[in-house]
This record gives sequence, structure tokens and C-alpha cells, in this order.
Amino acid sequence: MKKKVILDCDPGHDDAVAILLAGIAEEIELLGIIAVAGNSYLKNTARNALVLTEMAKLDIPVFAGSDKPLLRDQIVAPNIHGESGLEGANLPEPTKKLENKNYLEFIAENVYSNPNEITLVAVGPLTNIAKFALNYPDLVPLVKELVIMGGGIKFGNTTPRAEFNIYADPEAAQIVFNAGFNLTVFPLDVTHQAKIYMDEIKEMQKFESEIVSKMGMLLEFFHQTYFDIFKIEGAPLHDPCTIAYLIKPEIFEFEEYYAQVETKGELTYGETVVDYWHFKEPNSRWALKVDREEFIKILFDNLKKYN
Amino acid sequence: MKKKVILDCDPGHDDAVAILLAGIAEEIELLGIIAVAGNSYLKNTARNALVLTEMAKLDIPVFAGSDKPLLRDQIVAPNIHGESGLEGANLPEPTKKLENKNYLEFIAENVYSNPNEITLVAVGPLTNIAKFALNYPDLVPLVKELVIMGGGIKFGNTTPRAEFNIYADPEAAQIVFNAGFNLTVFPLDVTHQAKIYMDEIKEMQKFESEIVSKMGMLLEFFHQTYFDIFKIEGAPLHDPCTIAYLIKPEIFEFEEYYAQVETKGELTYGETVVDYWHFKEPNSRWALKVDREEFIKILFDNLKKYN
Amino acid sequence: MKKKVILDCDPGHDDAVAILLAGIAEEIELLGIIAVAGNSYLKNTARNALVLTEMAKLDIPVFAGSDKPLLRDQIVAPNIHGESGLEGANLPEPTKKLENKNYLEFIAENVYSNPNEITLVAVGPLTNIAKFALNYPDLVPLVKELVIMGGGIKFGNTTPRAEFNIYADPEAAQIVFNAGFNLTVFPLDVTHQAKIYMDEIKEMQKFESEIVSKMGMLLEFFHQTYFDIFKIEGAPLHDPCTIAYLIKPEIFEFEEYYAQVETKGELTYGETVVDYWHFKEPNSRWALKVDREEFIKILFDNLKKYN
Amino acid sequence: MKKKVILDCDPGHDDAVAILLAGIAEEIELLGIIAVAGNSYLKNTARNALVLTEMAKLDIPVFAGSDKPLLRDQIVAPNIHGESGLEGANLPEPTKKLENKNYLEFIAENVYSNPNEITLVAVGPLTNIAKFALNYPDLVPLVKELVIMGGGIKFGNTTPRAEFNIYADPEAAQIVFNAGFNLTVFPLDVTHQAKIYMDEIKEMQKFESEIVSKMGMLLEFFHQTYFDIFKIEGAPLHDPCTIAYLIKPEIFEFEEYYAQVETKGELTYGETVVDYWHFKEPNSRWALKVDREEFIKILFDNLKKYN
Repeated sequence: MKKKVILDCDPGHDDAVAILLAGIAEEIELLGIIAVAGNSYLKNTARNALVLTEMAKLDIPVFAGSDKPLLRDQIVAPNIHGESGLEGANLPEPTKKLENKNYLEFIAENVYSNPNEITLVAVGPLTNIAKFALNYPDLVPLVKELVIMGGGIKFGNTTPRAEFNIYADPEAAQIVFNAGFNLTVFPLDVTHQAKIYMDEIKEMQKFESEIVSKMGMLLEFFHQTYFDIFKIEGAPLHDPCTIAYLIKPEIFEFEEYYAQVETKGELTYGETVVDYWHFKEPNSRWALKVDREEFIKILFDNLKKYN
Repeated sequence: MKKKVILDCDPGHDDAVAILLAGIAEEIELLGIIAVAGNSYLKNTARNALVLTEMAKLDIPVFAGSDKPLLRDQIVAPNIHGESGLEGANLPEPTKKLENKNYLEFIAENVYSNPNEITLVAVGPLTNIAKFALNYPDLVPLVKELVIMGGGIKFGNTTPRAEFNIYADPEAAQIVFNAGFNLTVFPLDVTHQAKIYMDEIKEMQKFESEIVSKMGMLLEFFHQTYFDIFKIEGAPLHDPCTIAYLIKPEIFEFEEYYAQVETKGELTYGETVVDYWHFKEPNSRWALKVDREEFIKILFDNLKKYN
Repeated sequence: MKKKVILDCDPGHDDAVAILLAGIAEEIELLGIIAVAGNSYLKNTARNALVLTEMAKLDIPVFAGSDKPLLRDQIVAPNIHGESGLEGANLPEPTKKLENKNYLEFIAENVYSNPNEITLVAVGPLTNIAKFALNYPDLVPLVKELVIMGGGIKFGNTTPRAEFNIYADPEAAQIVFNAGFNLTVFPLDVTHQAKIYMDEIKEMQKFESEIVSKMGMLLEFFHQTYFDIFKIEGAPLHDPCTIAYLIKPEIFEFEEYYAQVETKGELTYGETVVDYWHFKEPNSRWALKVDREEFIKILFDNLKKYN
Repeated sequence: MKKKVILDCDPGHDDAVAILLAGIAEEIELLGIIAVAGNSYLKNTARNALVLTEMAKLDIPVFAGSDKPLLRDQIVAPNIHGESGLEGANLPEPTKKLENKNYLEFIAENVYSNPNEITLVAVGPLTNIAKFALNYPDLVPLVKELVIMGGGIKFGNTTPRAEFNIYADPEAAQIVFNAGFNLTVFPLDVTHQAKIYMDEIKEMQKFESEIVSKMGMLLEFFHQTYFDIFKIEGAPLHDPCTIAYLIKPEIFEFEEYYAQVETKGELTYGETVVDYWHFKEPNSRWALKVDREEFIKILFDNLKKYN
């Protein structure tokens, strides 16, 4: 049976790959996409979600979620994703429209009608998911699994100790970690193993599908910003890890931890703090290793289905 | 030429090994020992320093330094070191006395008289060293090197993210990291590789020297507390790493980082925050790997000299 | 025209007085009551709201709101209000039932249908109101006025600098202060002027109305806890200030401030920080003085209407 | 018997008045002045202390103390005191020189030789005093009294809740409040009552003594910056309150409090937090009221003695 998935994202280059992967994989039934402010402002991430689904011919509803974090001042990431959130290829304006329905009600109704069947995948700041947990605490245990990209154990990417998605809304993340979800986390520790290299990006650019070849161009931009800032070869495909996991979980290795988010620190605001020595009952499953070759194979095998 | 060393410590089991190693190694001229509150209260750590030097027949002055941290509430570590700070063998009361001279003046005079020749080794909370830096900022650049055991990049041991020495006086540590020392750090990342195993401890217990064989008994206690709390085999010899480094630096591998100490966080108070991506000019050298076999060989070769 | 009021509260002794006052005053049309965890747990504050409205024969819906704060660990105030939240008189179990409808939708529908006509009065922790603001940001400007009891400029009552309602959910309060409400605040500075003295309480106990005379007994308990803890004569009727203001605003004096809530401090967590020197554009109106005689007169004149 | 006083200050306009007052009052024997970084950088505050004592013909030693706070990033106050720390009159370069002796040893020797006779007056950031307490904890109880200008209960002047001297080194202040001094505090609550008005400043400008008439010119500058920033008439003579208190304590009213300094808060960093409800044993005496007429009389009566 296909996994019923609602994807909460802030496209964003790697979000875009996650959308394309989730939209075509036969293991997944993508019920809808919710945009959140993160890599760029909501108007951008929502527009990007619309144009991506339209170009990929994915007939799924797209919702606009939260336009700012719960409490902290808003940050976005133009240094990584460009001003539009998706620089590197000329994408047209979408003709597809956002849904009018409230995104929280969309999640709630799906979870309520399909208890223990809905997988929430959140690859942006956790603002929307925190609001869902605050408003529908009774539905949280009925969510099959919440799979997030966020956090880091060994390092951060926005501050020395904080990863962007968590840092962009640490209070939301802390609410989510304590809400009682069946929670699986893809931190930087694993996503920095899930790299795509330039030769692979060049190969993607030659795909016949317009959206996939454009995705290749977008990833070339993304690869460059990572090289410029972090001096690393290969662009980490953070967000698609969550989808690859839903397709083939055995390519990842996991460890369970009790994890919390620092919401007070000066140097550590937004750090995910895991109980390294396992003193406490775990509240989440953390992917720590991935078989990169398998990961890329899953990605390419699926993207080839677009035409 | 021997390295002139002043050792600031809070014995403590691994501190005791560091004292024995520093006291006998031919590469080192141990000028004096300063006790600080840390693993236990100052009265205990000072007494332990006295009895250790007395039993080891080390003719060096011992000073009592700070009895509490600069700012925070005092913590000690009876769960690891026992109430006395050095449980596991019956040690006699020392007959040797503490120096009357002020410990800060002792450091200052040595540094002033031997510019660029004095190595400070600090393996307890950094309270004494911070006071030295506050009172003698002009002497800081004349210290050849400050070598500390403290902090952790991948994990802590007192909280999920904080190591005991830093956590016991984070404000002192932050002062020290910003004081301008030529600073080398031995964090948990490397000291948890510098383990001594039970068969090695049992071997040490058979040494002829009374103090070394008692050290073996002390380490059996220490090994047990580590096993009980952290569920690990092998006791990490944190503090002796600093002395082994002065004896044979090439057994360690290093990376340079800009490092700061979190003094505000709720979950991360006392965490050492390193600039993982090297965005800033480094202020310290961090040992990240050690050749354990070589480390143990240095230890045993030296302890054999006691008789 | 009567002011349409929704009352969010955590009864609580002074909340109880606020309910009775709002329920009978001819200037006010009380549309509904929402309970929130605060002075006691939600099951208690909800039950207390039910029994109070039932005994007072107020035919209005009662909703259960949030059972815990957004982010922080829950606190309640049994030292002030007793374990039940309303100690001091034997109140029966209510027969009246809680509404099934979601309380946020109740607020939203009322505001949407009556733009610029609904006054929200919140006299407990601001958890419910923060959720309303997070979920219905577009409706916030359509709320006529948000009137809260909370905070303090010169002193706190739960910590030296924090007042209970704010301290019980500082993150919610910070969200509310930044949400864009037309906001009027009744801090401790004014509510500690709005005292009821023991002779007045004794007088209330002689009222014919059962609920009002019981209210007098409840207030005797409340008066005693204030005396025991704060060593003051006279019980501050915090929450009823908000209702008295809706009835006769001219008995209060106000100053406008830009106000924020400290969500990080160790000693000041939950403090309301007002821009004392008026450097910034104000975001709230703060009541700083009240004519106590007039306040008590309004209270008694209204409570006399119960029979 | 005259009170033996060591004055720690960061001149600064009101510091300058304090120096002049302490230097001439017959109730006071001014033993020495220590400069600290605060209103301006140490090179400026030290130079200002030198030129003031030289022009006032005060034959007392001047020391340079700390050039930066213990831990936090340095701040100075050019908006209030100008770039030099003492704008408003052309003061010559001093010919008088700083003492070579260490300022901490100067304090320590005086306290040790005159147990329970030395009054320390600190009217700048408490960096020097904290270092004294850290290094000579045994001498703290032998200090007769520590009198500071700093903090505020009802308001701050640098942030909404923090007064400059405390905010410029909150960690030092927290150390001082917990060091065990017999401590008297002059917060903004009282110093904003100790105003000098423009007609009084104009009168001071007419004094025959060059230094006093220049002081009048300096205060005109100071009066203007207060008016520009705080929109208040009358310049608060913060620092001289401490000296007036030593001359005639009965012009002030006091309350005892347990007080601590917030060192973590985001909005409240550097706030003095007093135990308003007196739940804890007091650690300090806070001046809350002053008879302004008497205060100005003491000031003018003394300044008249300069010629």
C-alpha cells in the first residue's frame, strides 16, 4: 500500500527535489503540499511550490501555511537559495492557484479520516507542524509518522551549532519534539552524506523532462553556493533524504535519542540537543548514516519517470 | 630543554595520574601544583594534591587556589570521584603543607621571570586561570602555552552538551578562551579515546612503587564509576592527555578552531562551541585523535620510573 | 450598545468575581467563557467556570481551552487559590456541560461575524489568545480590543519580576504583545490598588444571593492567602479590574508603552518589559491607577443585582 | 573621625562632581582614585581623573584599573558624556601621572592595614571591585562599607530595565552582590531625584574656582544630553549621591533588599532584580528617596571651599 504523505516545505532547491521525488515515487501517495516561510518568504515558497507541481504535472493541492515563525524574528536564506528561494533557472509564473482551505484543517481532516495512515513530512521550519500540534493535540497520536529534515548533532549550518530549519523557528521545533509524534529526524549528520556531485547534476540537466532538466540547473546554482560558503564539493540533498527514507528505509542507519531544542542560548539558540549517553527515554529516531550510491540511484530511477 | 610546567588541577583520579606523569617525565620540569575546586571541594583537592606529591616524593610546592567558581553555583563530582575526590584506596593524611604564597603571584612571577618558557596545564575548572588572565593581562602573551583538558565537540559528560571542567565554571572558561593565550585543548572527543582498560589497571596495581600501585586501585574505582554511569568499558584518562602531549605531541592529531563557551543557554550552559566550518580566525588548537597504544606506553614507561 | 465580551479565564477567586461582574453588568453582553489552565489545571478551571455560571444563572456557553502552556513546563498556583483553584466555600459539582465546539472557532466566528465589535478579556495565562493570534492573524485587527490582566512594571508576584499570568506562559504572552491587538493591560501596579478589604468581604457574605455570599466566603480564603504570603491587608481583585474598565473606564488612569516579554532570563523569565522612556512606538495601554472606592462601588452595585 | 574613602570611578560628568565633592568634604579622607572603563575607555577615564585631581589640587594617587569588562563586549556612553567622557569644557592635558602600583594591591593593603575603616565607593562598572572580591575574598569582610551607584528598581537608563554601570559589566556586578560586602546601593530611583537644574548649573559656572566653574560648563553639556535623550529637565547627579551619603546619610531614605543581577536575559541583561516582597534575607541597602534641596546644599557648600 502506498504511504499517504503530506509534504510541508519551503522550496528551496532541495525541497524542490523532494517534491519531484515524492510526486513520482510509486511507494508514495502525495496528498498535498503546504508551503512555509523558511528558505525564502512565504509568497516565494508558495509560488515555488505551485510552479514545481504545475511543471511536474502533479495534480495535488498546494496550501500556504505560516508566513513567519511563532516567536522569533524572521530569517530567510538568500545566501543559499537566492532571493526567490529557487534561483538558477528561469521558472515561469504558475497558473495553478493556492487552495483556499485552511492548511491546518487540511492536515486535521486527513489525519482524522485516516488514523495511523498519514505520514507528515516537514522539511522547512516547523512552524506549521507546531501549530497543528498546539491546535489538535488529540490528533498527534493518530499521525503515522512525522519525518523531518532538521537539526544536527556534530555541527550546524546557520550558526556553529544550529541547522537552518530549527534555527528559523526553535520554539516551534521544541513544541514539535515534545508533542508526542512518532518522530524520525534527518539531521545534517546524515544529509551531508547524501550529496549530489557535479557530474551527477550535469547528467540530470540532460534529462528529457523539462522540469527535471531545470532541476539540474537549479542544483548547479545550489552546488555553487555550498562550495562558496562551506568549501565543500557536492551539494547535500537535505530534504530528499526524508522521501528516500519513505521509499527505501534500509539505506539509512538510525539511533534513537531524547532530543530537545535550545531556545535560550546566545551561541546555541536553535541547537538540537540529543541525549548522547541515552540517559533518558528516547523521543525520536535519528538517521546518522546513508548509503549515498543507493540514495542517488533512488533519486535518478524516480526522476527518469518524468517525461 | 625540559618544559617548565605549572599544573592546575582538582585531583580527582585522572588528575592524580597527570601529577604522577608530570612529576616523573624527563621532558618536564614541574614547578608547582595549584589545586582548584572541581571534582571535589578545595579542601579535598588540595589535600589530595599534597598527599600525592608526598607519596610520589615530588619536591614541588602545592598551592590552594579558588574554592568556588567565579559566578555560578558550585558543583562537584562525587558520582565519578567519590566524596573525597579520590576514592578507591586508603591514602594517608599528608604531612606536607600548602604554600602560604598567593598562587596567582606564583604563576605571575614564574611567567614574568621566564617569558615564553612557562607552560600552564589546567585540567580542572578554569577559575584560577581566568583570575590570572583578569589580573595579569600583560603576562598572558608571555605564557608559552596553556594546555587544558576540557570541553567537547561531539558530546558532553555532565550535561548532554557540556563537559565537567567547563560546566563547573563556564564564565571562567569563556574568559580564558578570549584572553589571548596560545591555547591547546584536549576535549572529550580525544580523551574518550585515551582509555585505560581493566587489564592495564590490574597491571598497574602490581607495580612495586606504593603510589603507583595505589593509583591502580584508585583507577579501578574510577573505571567502575564510568562503567556504572556511561556503560562504557575502559576509563578515559582525560587529564593525563595534556601531559602526554607535552612529552610526545606527535601521538595526537589536531584541528584549529575559533571556540567560545555558551554562558546563557538552558540546555547548553557550559558547552564549548567550535566554529566547525572555520569561518573565523582560530583561537585554539583542539586535539581530536590519539594513538591509544602509544599513550598507554608513555604512561607505563614513566610510571615504571617510580620506585 | 452593550459591549460584546468573550471572557478567557482560569477561575480562580478573582476570576470568579470577574465572571459574576461581567455576567450581570448592563454595559456588557457576555457571549461566552473559555477556561484555560493557570491558577489550577484545566479540569479544575473548566469545572469552576461551569459551576459559577450555573449558580449565577448565566446562560452562556463555557468552553475548555488549553490544558498547558505553549512551551514551558506547567505551573499552577495552589498557594493562592487552593488545590481546586477555588477553595474557601463548598461548591457543588456543576450539572452544566462544556461546549463541544472548538473554542478557537468560537472566537473566530464571533469576531468574523462582528468585526470591530468583540472585546476579548483574558485574565489567565495567554495560551488561548496566542493560539488564536497564530491561527487567525487576519482576524486580530477585527477584534475591537483585547483587555488583559497580567504583568507588572514595579514588581512581580510569582518571581520578583514576573506576574503569574505572564510567567505561566511567557512565550504566549510575547506572541500576544506582538500580534497587533488593540491591547489594554491591567498590571499588578494597578490591581494591587484594587483591593477589597475584610469588612467589605464580610459585607459580601451577607448578600442574599447564594453565589454572591459564597463568593464572599471564597474571598475570605483568598484574602488570607494574600496576607500569609505577601503580608498585605486587603486582597487585590486583579481580574475584575478588566471588567470594571469595560463598565466605567474613567476610574482608571493609563499610560501607553511599547512592551515585550522576557523569554530568556534566569531571574526575569516572564517579566513584562515596558519601554519606560517612551523611545519606541507604543503597542499597548497600561492602567496604572484606579479609584478604589469607585471600583468597589461598581462591584457591589452590580453584585446586588443577583438574587 | 573622617571616613577613609577609596573612589572607583569612570569620569564622566557626574563622576567628576563626585571627585570634587569627596576631595573637599571635611567628613572624608580621600585615599585614592581608581579609574575604570565605563562612560568612556580607560585611557580617557584615567586621564580625566588625573586632570580633575590636578586642577582641584587634590594630592591623591590615581590608578588605572580595568580596561574592559570581565566577560561581555565593552560598551561606553558617548551619547551622554561625549567621546572624551568629559565633553563640555576644554580641559588641559594632565601633567600628573598614574601610579605604577597595582590598584588591587592598593585597595588590599589599605583594607588590610585599616580593618573595618575603609569605605569603597564605586560609581562606574564594578569590574575593579569584582576583581578585588575574587582575589581577596578574605578582605571583603574587612571593608567597612561598599557604596555603589548602580541599578534601578523602577526603570533603567541604558535598556528599559538596565542602568549603565550594571549593564556595562553585569557579571562583575553579580559577583559583587554575592561577595559579602556591607553594601549600600544608589539606584536610578534615587539618583533621578538628585537633579541639578539649569539655574543651579549657571550659578556653579560663576564660582571663582576654575575647576568648579568648568564643572558648571561640563554640567551644562550633561544637562543637554539628558534633555535630548530622556526629555527631562534637570540633570541627575547620580554619582555624587554616594558622597553626599557619606557626608550626611540622613538626607536619604533606605530599604533593604536581597538583590541579584540578571546575566542571561535578552531584554533584561544587566537588570538589578530586587526581592520586592522581602522573601529573602537582604544583602544590600537601597537608597530610594533623597531630600534634593539638602543634597544641592551639601554640594554647593562644599564646592564653595575650592578657590
